[in-house]
Formats: sequence, C-alpha cells, structure tokens
Amino acid sequence: MSKFDKFQGFQVDSPETWNQFHLREFDAKPFGDYDVDIKIECCGVCSSDIHTINGGWGDQHFPLTVGHEIVGRALRVGPKVTLVKEGQRVGVGAQSYSCLDCRQCKNDNETYCAKQLDTYGAVWPDSGVVSQGGYSSQVRTHEHWVFPIPDAIPSYLAAPMLCAGISAYSPLVRNGAGPGKKVAIVGIGGLGHYGVMYAKALGAETWAISRTHSKEEDAMKMGADGFLATSDKDWNEPHKMTFDLVISTANNFGQGFDLSAYLSLLDVHGKWISIGFPEESTLQVKPQDLNPNGCLIGASHLGSRKEMLEMFKLVAEKGVKSWVETVPLSADNLSKTVQRLHKNDVRYRFTMVDYDKVFGA
Amino acid sequence: MSKFDKFQGFQVDSPETWNQFHLREFDAKPFGDYDVDIKIECCGVCSSDIHTINGGWGDQHFPLTVGHEIVGRALRVGPKVTLVKEGQRVGVGAQSYSCLDCRQCKNDNETYCAKQLDTYGAVWPDSGVVSQGGYSSQVRTHEHWVFPIPDAIPSYLAAPMLCAGISAYSPLVRNGAGPGKKVAIVGIGGLGHYGVMYAKALGAETWAISRTHSKEEDAMKMGADGFLATSDKDWNEPHKMTFDLVISTANNFGQGFDLSAYLSLLDVHGKWISIGFPEESTLQVKPQDLNPNGCLIGASHLGSRKEMLEMFKLVAEKGVKSWVETVPLSADNLSKTVQRLHKNDVRYRFTMVDYDKVFGA
Repeated sequence: MSKFDKFQGFQVDSPETWNQFHLREFDAKPFGDYDVDIKIECCGVCSSDIHTINGGWGDQHFPLTVGHEIVGRALRVGPKVTLVKEGQRVGVGAQSYSCLDCRQCKNDNETYCAKQLDTYGAVWPDSGVVSQGGYSSQVRTHEHWVFPIPDAIPSYLAAPMLCAGISAYSPLVRNGAGPGKKVAIVGIGGLGHYGVMYAKALGAETWAISRTHSKEEDAMKMGADGFLATSDKDWNEPHKMTFDLVISTANNFGQGFDLSAYLSLLDVHGKWISIGFPEESTLQVKPQDLNPNGCLIGASHLGSRKEMLEMFKLVAEKGVKSWVETVPLSADNLSKTVQRLHKNDVRYRFTMVDYDKVFGA
Repeated sequence: MSKFDKFQGFQVDSPETWNQFHLREFDAKPFGDYDVDIKIECCGVCSSDIHTINGGWGDQHFPLTVGHEIVGRALRVGPKVTLVKEGQRVGVGAQSYSCLDCRQCKNDNETYCAKQLDTYGAVWPDSGVVSQGGYSSQVRTHEHWVFPIPDAIPSYLAAPMLCAGISAYSPLVRNGAGPGKKVAIVGIGGLGHYGVMYAKALGAETWAISRTHSKEEDAMKMGADGFLATSDKDWNEPHKMTFDLVISTANNFGQGFDLSAYLSLLDVHGKWISIGFPEESTLQVKPQDLNPNGCLIGASHLGSRKEMLEMFKLVAEKGVKSWVETVPLSADNLSKTVQRLHKNDVRYRFTMVDYDKVFGA
C-alpha cells in the first residue's frame, strides 16, 4: 500500500490529449504541521490550465490535475496552523509554497521567492509528490496560501479571483491605481474584466481598451469610465501622455500587437504592465517609443497573501461581482470548457461547480 | 543683407561627408526677450553628434554645426532674463526649448515636452532658422536652458556633463540611487563613467559592468565598489536579484547583448533604464525575463533644469572630475576627434578647447 494519502481528481495525460480528462486517484503530499486539508467546493478555469496541459509552457509532469482557483472548506488543520480554522471557507490560488524566510518573502513578495512552488505540476522537494490542482476532491496546502473568504462573496464568484483576480489587483495597487489616477486595461477578457472592476473600485479613472466595440457595453457595466477600440483610426491620439498606468492582458505580442500605440498613452514615467502570459512571443521594444515619455515596461506575477486578503475585503465592501458562467464538474464538461476557453468563448470566466455530485457531500 | 545676426561655426554638409568640417557663417535666430548670447569657450564631443551627422538618426537639416555640451560666457542677456547675469560662466546642453507651460514643463519634465527643440538641427518655428550647435563662436539660448556653472568646476570638465553627465544623473536620482541602494552601470564609456561617479557621489553601492576586465582599474578609480565582466562565466549568478537599479549605456541591442542576464540582476520591481541611444536596434524582451522579479524596463531622456543645477552642485561639493581629453578646436581636429569617438577610442570624453584661437578673445 502506498505511504501517501489519496485524493481524487480529473487528470490529463499528455499535451496531445490535452482536452481529455480522467477521474483518478493521486498521491497527496505528506500532511505537514502548517498544512490545511480543504474539501473543494468549486474551481475557476484559468488560461494557465490550458497553457500547461497543451504544452505551451513547456514540459510538465503528467498525468496532471490542473485548476488553481480553488474554493472549499478547511476539513483539517495542522498542529501549527494559526491563520485558518477548521470548517472555515477558504481559497487557494496558483502558488502553494515559498520559503517564507528570504528577503522577498519577508517583504510581501513571496510570489518572487526563488523557492516558490505552483499549486499544480510542481514537485514537492521532500516527498517527490507532484502537486495536483483543483479539479479534485481535496487539496492540501500550507496555511500561508490558504485565504479565508468573506461571507459576502459566493464561492463560485470568489474562485476566479484567486488567480485572475489577484493577477489584476496586485499591479494596480503596487502602481498606485486610485483617486486622481488614469488607468487603462487592455483586453477585456477573464483578466481584463477584473482589471476594469478593481481599478474602478480602487477609485481610479478607468478606461477599457479592446480591439473592437463589441465589448463596450459590457465594459461600461463593469464600471469603465471610458472605452477605446484600437480598430478605430487614431484611437490613441486624444489620450497621448495622459495615462498613469496601462495594464495589458494581451496574450500575444506578435502581429497586430502595437506596443508603440499603448506606450504613447503613458504620462512621463508611466507604466505599462503585462499580466498576460504569452507562450512564445517576444516583446519588440523600439527605444524611440520609450524616450518621448520615459515610460516603463514591466510584468507582474500573481500577488501576495496580504494583497489577496485586501482584495477580498475590497470585493466584499464594494460588491464587486465576477462575471461567471458555472459548469457542473465532470470529465466531459471539463473537456468542453477548456476548449471553449481556448477559443475565448466565455464572458468572462468559468467556474466548475457541483463537486458534491462527483465527490460526495 | 540678411535680416539675421551671423555667428560662425564648423559645419558638416551631408552624412556622406560626416567627418568633414567647414568653418562658415550661419544665421542666428532673432534675439528674444528671454535669450542669452553666449561666447563659447569649449564644447564636449558627444556620440549624438555622430549619430546626427552620419545620418544614423535619420534626415537632418544640413549644413549643420553640431556640439551640445557648451560652456561659455553670457555676453548679452534679454530684457526679461532673470536666471543668468551678463558675464556669468554658463553651460548649454542638448535641449534649448520647450513650451514651459504644459503639465510636463510645470513638473520638471520639460525634457518630455511635446514642443521641445534640440540645441542643433531643430527649426525655430517663428523664424525658420535651424538651430546650430557648439563648435561655434556663439550660441543664443533661452535662459531656461542656460545653466550657471559653479566656480569650482573647470569649463573643460563641466562641458561633457551638459549632455552625457545629465543623461546619467537624471535616471539615478529619479530612481532613488542613494545610500542603501545597489546600482549597476553597464558600459564604462562616456556616459557610463558619469554613471559610476554620480552613483557613488549620491551614496549608492556602485558596480561597474563591462564586457572585459580592461576598464576595471579605471572603474575602481572612478569610485566603483565592485566590477563585473560579462565575458566571465556565470558573471551574474552571485548577484541575481540584488540590484535596485541598472543603468544601461549599451548602444546596440543586437547580437551579444544579453538583456536577460542584466534583468536577472534586479531585485523585485527593480528597474533597468537605458540611456544609450541605439540607431536601429530593437530591444527583444522575453516575458519570462520580466516575471521572476517583476522588473521594469525603461529609458530616460536628458534631465530637467532643476536636475542640471543639482548635478553641478553635487559635482562641486564632491569634487567629481570628468575624465577628459582636450583637443584644440579646428576643422581638422574635429574630423579626427569624431572618427576617434566613432571607434570608442577615448577614455572617456573629448572636449574641444582653445576657441579664442579660432574666434578671437
């Protein structure tokens, strides 16, 4: 008999069969003093899941259960756990470990710790067990990456905030989005819809930028103060050098991606921050696009525990609501859902629900 | 007879004859209420001069006198001038006009004003006169771009600070270089030697980065606390994620330029700021190089009047000394000097001197 506890989850076997899911048992890492066992209630579907299972982000440890926007109940907490109580409703995002001891970790930059591990597909150094994601019965996670969810936020709406939401929230607050600032969100998709809602909730003048006007009505409902379509002639002209911050969710920096036009929007030393995660594109930066305003180009990776808790507080206080389509968990539905997401056929986020019908109450 | 005042200067006629200089008369712009006429004493030789006369930066208004690191005496000041006194020793840098009325100008960002004009090669909107640089008898400049030079700084050492110096100083102070910060200067040339000296004068832990060890001794004399040669195997490994700021003077982003290695040096949200001005290179940024530390890439353009005055104060107080080779002004010497600079055959800056032998005392 295996020395490991067993959980159940829907696994993918290879990039060639990336849209085929199989319900199986898998090994859980040994239960540590700071660990929390969570019975999963629902899980958001993230583009990262697709980049991982289809091989776009390189080699992975198959078979693999993806899913890293997890909400559930704390079933059991380790003897040293202080941040989470048994029975509490909690979330787990895309990161599940860092050293908590280095300069990064001690400065709320644990997402930049060199020893960080992902919620799925990472090898736990002590046991060799490969971490498995949230299309599963349970997840076992160090308390630092287990976040209590305020009662005001329904689980299925909280779930996608644990990766997409925090990825948009962190660069907004780290770059001063708030009253008196003008912020643009480029790309109104899963990430971008959070960008618009959070920028507005934080008090910034918020503009949505999309290729066409097809999502204009939605963006205004999300709270945008203005909308720009890059297919309009000279769309950027009236807004040159007026934005403090541009958050880009673009997933491809190849043909049709006009970095110069976005950078021209920025005020002196304004920032263009990418939170999209292109598979292979390289960003082509012309030095002459940086000089007219001394702008800065950067990227952002998830967000800290501190930011996650602040984000949920803001969401509860301001009544921010994820735009979510729920899908009952099953192998067939996961297959259909990742294929729809791959085609961007969603407004704006999927959450897999009805876990009790698969794994029991 | 021409309606314009005449000055004399050494002009180049075309990119094809970029290293041939001809002493000629040229039109000065009409004398304005805020203008200062400066009798030039010396002028630094800047790479910008070469990029301009050899066509690397595109079409120019030939014939043209370049040179924008000018030191001289204020001969005559306009009726509304308050910042400069007649007889005062002053400098003029690369910029000679902005609107002084827009948000940028009012926030010490006049180098990012949309209406800025260069010291040479720009067309004055009112008169159509093309601005001419400092290999000349005189220059006529709005007082905002005329900077009193502290007595402690010899003219030939002050001159190259007016473009190269300020280009290094501004991004250092704007990005917090000072006590407790670790700063790298990439490329120990004309710009880089100021980067090292200023970063040290500002109190930062200062590292020089060069291709080989050939300039190590010089860099240490300039005040570097440490030196890294990129030709050494794994040169960046011990320094990963430890720098707050990297100032790059690289003049080419093509083959042999390893942006990833430089970005890996940066601490979380650290900045890589380019002050080199490549002629045609495009910076290739891999998104995966931005994610591990959430670093930022940017550029910087000259510096404000406020920074120029601060810089000269620091230079005078700390006794910062430009490393300068002086060359007596003549058509032949200008030709030889721009060719030597084009081959980087200088440690670390040229100043053309002995103007009185050409233009009289």
